Amino acid sequence: MEMETVKYLQILTEEIHSVVVATLNEEGRPETRVIDMMLYDEQGLYFLTARGKSFYRQLMQQGYVSLSGTKAKRAVRVDGKVRNIGHKKLAEIFAHNPYMGKIYPGDTCEVLEVFQLYEGTGEFFDISNPAHIKRGSFVIGKAAEVATGYQVSKACVGCRRCLSVCPQACITMGENDCAHIEDSHCLSCGRCAEVCPVQAIHRPER
Amino acid sequence: MEMETVKYLQILTEEIHSVVVATLNEEGRPETRVIDMMLYDEQGLYFLTARGKSFYRQLMQQGYVSLSGTKAKRAVRVDGKVRNIGHKKLAEIFAHNPYMGKIYPGDTCEVLEVFQLYEGTGEFFDISNPAHIKRGSFVIGKAAEVATGYQVSKACVGCRRCLSVCPQACITMGENDCAHIEDSHCLSCGRCAEVCPVQAIHRPER
Repeated sequence: MEMETVKYLQILTEEIHSVVVATLNEEGRPETRVIDMMLYDEQGLYFLTARGKSFYRQLMQQGYVSLSGTKAKRAVRVDGKVRNIGHKKLAEIFAHNPYMGKIYPGDTCEVLEVFQLYEGTGEFFDISNPAHIKRGSFVIGKAAEVATGYQVSKACVGCRRCLSVCPQACITMGENDCAHIEDSHCLSCGRCAEVCPVQAIHRPER
Repeated sequence: MEMETVKYLQILTEEIHSVVVATLNEEGRPETRVIDMMLYDEQGLYFLTARGKSFYRQLMQQGYVSLSGTKAKRAVRVDGKVRNIGHKKLAEIFAHNPYMGKIYPGDTCEVLEVFQLYEGTGEFFDISNPAHIKRGSFVIGKAAEVATGYQVSKACVGCRRCLSVCPQACITMGENDCAHIEDSHCLSCGRCAEVCPVQAIHRPER
């Protein structure tokens, strides 16, 4: 696991801690709830839920989640595969998060089971400077990294219209008088693509 | 709109503010991102996004979101229908949230469009006292309220096993020597249902 990835998982677990996880409900619609990110290590992220919750059933059936969390103008998103690891790491989770022993006192914690997010992709956003946001992406396990922001193709005619409409001023003229979008500061608002006279600006599908 | 509902929308918009919204991606999987809840009124919740984002396309196609947010040991969840209201309320949103003018300066805000969550159901959680959590539910617009916690049917034989296994001690003996679950403190962990010898405890499907 890359150093940067470890840093993002640490922010998610230790700083943000309470995150929102989405699964699908019985009707195939998205369903969210707040959960706490309990632990992280080189093998991924760890959280838990009780066997009686619909969230538990959805995790077992779907094996996939999208989660996001934010605190102090920083946000982290992770989409990926999850698997049930039973009571493995449960004692470590309760030792690391002592408040859990108050919600589930004594042996009532046995109703909880641990899930590991072991493979997925993530994004990091820092908007502490709103005039110049920062983005980064990372990978957990064997997932393939995905491009997310807008990109300029060779069809660019160098008219510079996109430069003047970017809210974050993150488009410059690059090689061969062709516009270049600095992905790490792009809001993905799409304004550049709307004004391009030759449809040279596209966003890769996730 | 009920007074309690207005209070929950106010907590979501003014106190929590940055929430996580889930839609479905192109593959029918859940996809989350952090957004800011910009305004609320008697007609629902208001947020915005840029036309170039995949989130925008998903909102237009699906017309439905699940969102959750948390701050200071309180959490609010809302699931419901959304509709695009264009630039209506955009000026009000920028006036009420001045930092938006730094992210989208000048006329670049025209790439943003406003969405209204006008019909849905919500839940409120307060875990500031972890030994005694509090829950509540509410409705936006014409949605039907849904029961969420575990309930005891008339099949209960009064054995009291469920009373002793509840992490939150929120089960008491009620009328006719039949167990009663205090829904407003239930974690929905399902431990009571697991020990019931006559399967008298069930959770209504959402």
